[in-house]
Amino acid sequence: MWGGRFAEGPSAIMREINASIPFDKALWRQDIAASKAHVAMLGTQGIVAPADAATIAAGLDRVAAEYEANGVPEDWDLEDIHMTTESRLAELIGPVAGRLHTARSRNDQVATDFRLWVRDAIDQADAGLAALQRALVERAGEHAASIMPGFTHLQTAQPVTLGHHLMAYYEMAARDRSRFAAARARMNRCPLGSAALAGTGFPIDRHATATALGFDGPTANSLDAVSDRDFALDYLMAASQCALHLSRLAEEFIIWASQPFGFVRLPDSLSTGSSIMPQKKNPDAAELVRGHAGRIVGCLTALMITMKGLPLAYSKDMQDDKPPVFEAAGLLTLCLAAMTGMVEATTFRTERMRAAAELGYATATDLADWLVRQANIPFREAHHITGAAVKLAEGKGVALDQLSLDELRGIDARIDERVYAALSVEASVAARASHGGTAPAEVDKRVAEARAALGLD
Amino acid sequence: MWGGRFAEGPSAIMREINASIPFDKALWRQDIAASKAHVAMLGTQGIVAPADAATIAAGLDRVAAEYEANGVPEDWDLEDIHMTTESRLAELIGPVAGRLHTARSRNDQVATDFRLWVRDAIDQADAGLAALQRALVERAGEHAASIMPGFTHLQTAQPVTLGHHLMAYYEMAARDRSRFAAARARMNRCPLGSAALAGTGFPIDRHATATALGFDGPTANSLDAVSDRDFALDYLMAASQCALHLSRLAEEFIIWASQPFGFVRLPDSLSTGSSIMPQKKNPDAAELVRGHAGRIVGCLTALMITMKGLPLAYSKDMQDDKPPVFEAAGLLTLCLAAMTGMVEATTFRTERMRAAAELGYATATDLADWLVRQANIPFREAHHITGAAVKLAEGKGVALDQLSLDELRGIDARIDERVYAALSVEASVAARASHGGTAPAEVDKRVAEARAALGLD
Amino acid sequence: MWGGRFAEGPSAIMREINASIPFDKALWRQDIAASKAHVAMLGTQGIVAPADAATIAAGLDRVAAEYEANGVPEDWDLEDIHMTTESRLAELIGPVAGRLHTARSRNDQVATDFRLWVRDAIDQADAGLAALQRALVERAGEHAASIMPGFTHLQTAQPVTLGHHLMAYYEMAARDRSRFAAARARMNRCPLGSAALAGTGFPIDRHATATALGFDGPTANSLDAVSDRDFALDYLMAASQCALHLSRLAEEFIIWASQPFGFVRLPDSLSTGSSIMPQKKNPDAAELVRGHAGRIVGCLTALMITMKGLPLAYSKDMQDDKPPVFEAAGLLTLCLAAMTGMVEATTFRTERMRAAAELGYATATDLADWLVRQANIPFREAHHITGAAVKLAEGKGVALDQLSLDELRGIDARIDERVYAALSVEASVAARASHGGTAPAEVDKRVAEARAALGLD
Amino acid sequence: MWGGRFAEGPSAIMREINASIPFDKALWRQDIAASKAHVAMLGTQGIVAPADAATIAAGLDRVAAEYEANGVPEDWDLEDIHMTTESRLAELIGPVAGRLHTARSRNDQVATDFRLWVRDAIDQADAGLAALQRALVERAGEHAASIMPGFTHLQTAQPVTLGHHLMAYYEMAARDRSRFAAARARMNRCPLGSAALAGTGFPIDRHATATALGFDGPTANSLDAVSDRDFALDYLMAASQCALHLSRLAEEFIIWASQPFGFVRLPDSLSTGSSIMPQKKNPDAAELVRGHAGRIVGCLTALMITMKGLPLAYSKDMQDDKPPVFEAAGLLTLCLAAMTGMVEATTFRTERMRAAAELGYATATDLADWLVRQANIPFREAHHITGAAVKLAEGKGVALDQLSLDELRGIDARIDERVYAALSVEASVAARASHGGTAPAEVDKRVAEARAALGLD
Repeated sequence: MWGGRFAEGPSAIMREINASIPFDKALWRQDIAASKAHVAMLGTQGIVAPADAATIAAGLDRVAAEYEANGVPEDWDLEDIHMTTESRLAELIGPVAGRLHTARSRNDQVATDFRLWVRDAIDQADAGLAALQRALVERAGEHAASIMPGFTHLQTAQPVTLGHHLMAYYEMAARDRSRFAAARARMNRCPLGSAALAGTGFPIDRHATATALGFDGPTANSLDAVSDRDFALDYLMAASQCALHLSRLAEEFIIWASQPFGFVRLPDSLSTGSSIMPQKKNPDAAELVRGHAGRIVGCLTALMITMKGLPLAYSKDMQDDKPPVFEAAGLLTLCLAAMTGMVEATTFRTERMRAAAELGYATATDLADWLVRQANIPFREAHHITGAAVKLAEGKGVALDQLSLDELRGIDARIDERVYAALSVEASVAARASHGGTAPAEVDKRVAEARAALGLD
Repeated sequence: MWGGRFAEGPSAIMREINASIPFDKALWRQDIAASKAHVAMLGTQGIVAPADAATIAAGLDRVAAEYEANGVPEDWDLEDIHMTTESRLAELIGPVAGRLHTARSRNDQVATDFRLWVRDAIDQADAGLAALQRALVERAGEHAASIMPGFTHLQTAQPVTLGHHLMAYYEMAARDRSRFAAARARMNRCPLGSAALAGTGFPIDRHATATALGFDGPTANSLDAVSDRDFALDYLMAASQCALHLSRLAEEFIIWASQPFGFVRLPDSLSTGSSIMPQKKNPDAAELVRGHAGRIVGCLTALMITMKGLPLAYSKDMQDDKPPVFEAAGLLTLCLAAMTGMVEATTFRTERMRAAAELGYATATDLADWLVRQANIPFREAHHITGAAVKLAEGKGVALDQLSLDELRGIDARIDERVYAALSVEASVAARASHGGTAPAEVDKRVAEARAALGLD
Repeated sequence: MWGGRFAEGPSAIMREINASIPFDKALWRQDIAASKAHVAMLGTQGIVAPADAATIAAGLDRVAAEYEANGVPEDWDLEDIHMTTESRLAELIGPVAGRLHTARSRNDQVATDFRLWVRDAIDQADAGLAALQRALVERAGEHAASIMPGFTHLQTAQPVTLGHHLMAYYEMAARDRSRFAAARARMNRCPLGSAALAGTGFPIDRHATATALGFDGPTANSLDAVSDRDFALDYLMAASQCALHLSRLAEEFIIWASQPFGFVRLPDSLSTGSSIMPQKKNPDAAELVRGHAGRIVGCLTALMITMKGLPLAYSKDMQDDKPPVFEAAGLLTLCLAAMTGMVEATTFRTERMRAAAELGYATATDLADWLVRQANIPFREAHHITGAAVKLAEGKGVALDQLSLDELRGIDARIDERVYAALSVEASVAARASHGGTAPAEVDKRVAEARAALGLD
Repeated sequence: MWGGRFAEGPSAIMREINASIPFDKALWRQDIAASKAHVAMLGTQGIVAPADAATIAAGLDRVAAEYEANGVPEDWDLEDIHMTTESRLAELIGPVAGRLHTARSRNDQVATDFRLWVRDAIDQADAGLAALQRALVERAGEHAASIMPGFTHLQTAQPVTLGHHLMAYYEMAARDRSRFAAARARMNRCPLGSAALAGTGFPIDRHATATALGFDGPTANSLDAVSDRDFALDYLMAASQCALHLSRLAEEFIIWASQPFGFVRLPDSLSTGSSIMPQKKNPDAAELVRGHAGRIVGCLTALMITMKGLPLAYSKDMQDDKPPVFEAAGLLTLCLAAMTGMVEATTFRTERMRAAAELGYATATDLADWLVRQANIPFREAHHITGAAVKLAEGKGVALDQLSLDELRGIDARIDERVYAALSVEASVAARASHGGTAPAEVDKRVAEARAALGLD
């Protein structure tokens, strides 16, 4: 494979550390597709005789059929998917197979294959995110007016609606999709024809192969084309951000499923039991989604470290680009599916949510705002007055609206009986009708927009 | 500051761990701008009397002028830039200052301020990258035909042109700019008016404040708006990728400046000497750029970890968003400036580069390609024949084109004297005229396109 | 400073990127101490005249006194703490100051200074951990028999005692101390005298300087000594592990402080309020501890990346060793103090904990164990029977011990009335008296051992 | 498996995300060993009838024999290695298999199995490091007096010996071994018997199982024991540090193998060729070692992130502990073997190294030191004089010792002809005989000590 120059073969350790076929066989479809595009172009350009090109293309189809039927064989001596395929091709069609590698190198070949694979992974992530968004929008629509405590610092802050809460994740998923889309657009240039590092002297047509493979055009600099792994990092960055979002949603489901919260009843289909404690119903899927965020970020970290300080052009370190991307993509697909399933099938215990919203003085801000509006008190002062009311209520162990008017007026004489209307959780959420606010009417608007964007209805 | 509820003040350790003013004072310009936009809107909407709004706006200008003149005071009891400013405002204009915080919270305030800051940092990175691109293009134009060894695995691979090599970094910088631009577009929605987490009951106009602050519009979900730090992560991801690119260029300058390579003479202005070895001229700036890549990636890692698994909405952990972003932005600015200076001022020792290109059998591929073209031999076979020729030349300690025709024909009889024309480094680079190839003519084209894109000439 | 060789001074960008004085001035005490040890040895060995050595030592004391009184001046032209000190020394005592740098280089100097600093940071971390352990042991002793729900997957699993729970963190802190101690022992070799990279021809006594600075002896290889930053990484690894432990404790306090849990009342002194919601009492200190774990791990990541792939010996990238270590050490100190304060001052709401322990069928395992013991049923079968009992109880909305004996016997006839004694939370915890188990008696043993180890009482 | 409580089975996505058997089957030997120790103890303690215990033990041996012969079956419905083994055991021996799980849980079971696995991995790493040290010491002994340029900033600094350079890595490996040893000692406590989280009510003997499995004793706190993954992180931290060391050595081999350096000729057995450039001999093994450092650090990062902020006790996120550890251990083993092979088999081109050492004014420090010693000039002044001499020599394009005495005296009149003796590279290295210095005699001492420590000769 390396020409006639080597006196002794690679030692056992070298075979093992060097062989990428155990993982890069995942690229076989892309490798076949890119080789077919390449040889078709070689034929069209007259670099290879048209008959030879046809023979090679047919041979590649046979190799592909074998892979499809029996999997890709793992022969470490053949190092990688490229050599595995070319070697099998030669067995099938003879020495003419040797013309396929004209005007290309493994350096541009792997760069092309891997881009194609990552592009597919992006499309898969986008589909997974769209499914998650659909699930979120459906449930948000159901619960546009269901009241729950909104938390900051995991402390009851203000009442919000469950629909509003779920739509927050819709927004995150929308940014994730935008990030994947930007990564896709940025990477969609074809390295094929960059050869080892310097381009080639054969009269190839890079625009033709680029088009055949669905790229927007060829890359502009051959040295960069074989040295660049931005597309893999872009994918991992988008995947990491997405995984972090999912980890937040997972954390919430885990907390909500705890006995003291009891906000949700998770679907049996996404929970497990215990080998020792028969009563347990554990939110394993959510925990694994949260845990997988660590591994996905670890994959990003790995590739960033590997790429740091590499001189141009291709270095073998870059072979370590694929395991982290493959691992992250597999995990991300699982995470998206698991969270979508969880959003779809979870039972929201809205009565417990609502009850919790009534605790914790969640409408204290409403009292402060009422004071500003009714009594034209500067907010800071209103905040102070409300603090005193909360302290009094806490001391008495009652809710804010269980303080008598006399008690409230003892704190500030400008308070009158109209204040009570502002202190219910329904009034509180209904009032927050500013753009993007939690009011059911606002949530309905956002849900409608989202449904339109997703093509629902 | 926290209303009338707390019985005892924060302890010493709490004051220290809690105070963000030592770093978030960097946001003062953004904080003033956002407060002015907010109060102007409150005035227009009649939520605050127009005269009060004007008093507050004038007061904010006075505070800003004080900061500009004397810096921002660091009083830990005031916690952060928001309270520091509001407190000073109250000293200057009295209780009316308390009306400023109507219909907002520190949660949406800091989200807005920080977005504005990051947006500026993106613009600064883009300017730094454009400057680097200009420097690369200028030097690439000078050296479109200067021959150097192209490396893969840091082994001499094929001759390339220095201009082509420099233009590889132009491409990387172009992707970096595209990444920052996508981050900017994605983040350019205004959180102001999301209040603590749920929106507000005051009749605010979020579109007005968004427009006043240069955003494309308001964010769509208040819970998301105060919980979201994607914009900071997007910045750090783009910065990390950019730093990795710069680390590769830095590595090359360091290797090129070593005595055995001797490809460059670094500018005195970006080198240092030794406290003990008087002959040393060290590529410190390049090493620091390479080292800073580690710190910038560390900043990204830090914030990803911090954000993992946080339930909605705001949690105090998110206060740890700013130190990594501030650190990364400072380092990135320095790295971009240092590498730009290095590209501009380095002396390329083209004679040494060319001499090195002639070693290492860099034109062996040209022999193989010649065999394919002239003798219609499949590439694989041509590769094998060439391997034998290299082995022979290596054994004799001569260059490939110093083998006699008889010796070459001894390896394969189809070789004739025309082959020698293909074996010079000039012929080699000139031949690689495929799109994006290293041929001087191709490099000239790319440089011309780049100059047009950058508005040069 | 760099001898007579440089034609032009460093440019503005170089001064900024190169200057480490803004952060390495933190090393001034270590730098003075190491210089004093070095010059004393030079005098003893006759490399410098004893009178000169005495002059230099006295001069160093004067410099130190100035630093103590006025801080270290930041003159970027002097680059770092070493040159700043030497320059000031020369101003104070004249050209004899130039003899101090005999037989050393900044490379071994900074390696020595920084080790001394890290060694102090280790001692500080150990003291902080010991304080945390004391707090944990005190509170665990109080609550050896207080019952709370033990969670797995954040689901109620089995009753445990609060003392047992707190002692889990005592164990983690013990491992942290062991890790810091191992790091300290490993790093305690003195690099001074390794000079630039190769050692020195002057007849120095490295054992003398090592002893004077409290090291166990000199390092064994000069190239390694100036290239090694293991000690910094060891510190960061120990700090990261410790921060992760603290993040877990912080997470628990945050969850426990939520209204639905209500297991703790956090001290006012370690909580904050809200600028908009007057009722809020936020667990900011715990959240910052949790968030800081991200930054500390980010510091470790940064230095690992920076060190990756650096050839020997010193490279300037290694100047980026100090900011992450300084940052991590500062954060860790705060985190340890904050969590110690929280453990000491938190009010545990044991009545709520106990009530929660009685929910969630926490004693189901006790029923299964009872079946194994009393009826000699294989555990797997007992587990199955118990599962059916839990299902029945859940369906009826009652606790396990509220099922009638008839109901239980309907599930398995081998159950008799003695089972009820096993189903109370007190019986459950008391039963788990295996070594390291949650039984109050076991907790008391562990607390007693810990008190002895800590020298309490 | 989960008792009788679940109404519907896990969905397809749940089966896939939840199943750990695809990777945790690697623990089968440890799982069998721990189960055997557990059941033996249950028998001895009378918790299980001795005959039943014997039946179970024999059954476990049969399962192990099946695994050994045919591999571990991957049935996702059985989730993990624990259930796979217990299920097969039940098939083989019937319901008595159900007694094995008495007084334990999967939580303590997996903690025990995984510790045993990690302990083996530590022993394997130690063996690999010892082999690397042996190779280093052998080659260092051969080259104790071979002169090469010592670099700082990759600039020629001072002459050193190759033996000294190699021994620097011996020191790093020694620290790595110390780090693994400390990790081993710290983790060597047995979690078995901690059960789900709280210990057990059965009268187990945890000291007996601990001893049977080679642990120093049982863990002290059951909650900690099932929640703790410090041992995995300790392993990953030691592995990361080790990988960083190897990445530095790899970087040096890569640079040294480049044509401009030409310091080494790498063994064919650890190099590869090119699919397109027949002359190439690429240092792939070294590059992969350097690249793998990124992945190993990525594994550490992943697990740190996963563990951050997890409440006690076991959470399912912790199932993500194994893939990173398995991956890192596999990569580290390969890296150690590859670098050992490279050190053993590389040809050092000492003539080229020596020639390079004579370039770059590497003995300038020797001139400065000579001035200090002979003329009693303060070092700073001597450094300045030498700088002027280097500048003069550089301008003339000659080596330092090719300057005439007149020229040198023109710079400083105190120079006399004895100076030339100090300026040879041999004199330079011989002079640096301080402890740990590069002098051949010093290297010989260190090599002798190392050989003794390794038990060589």
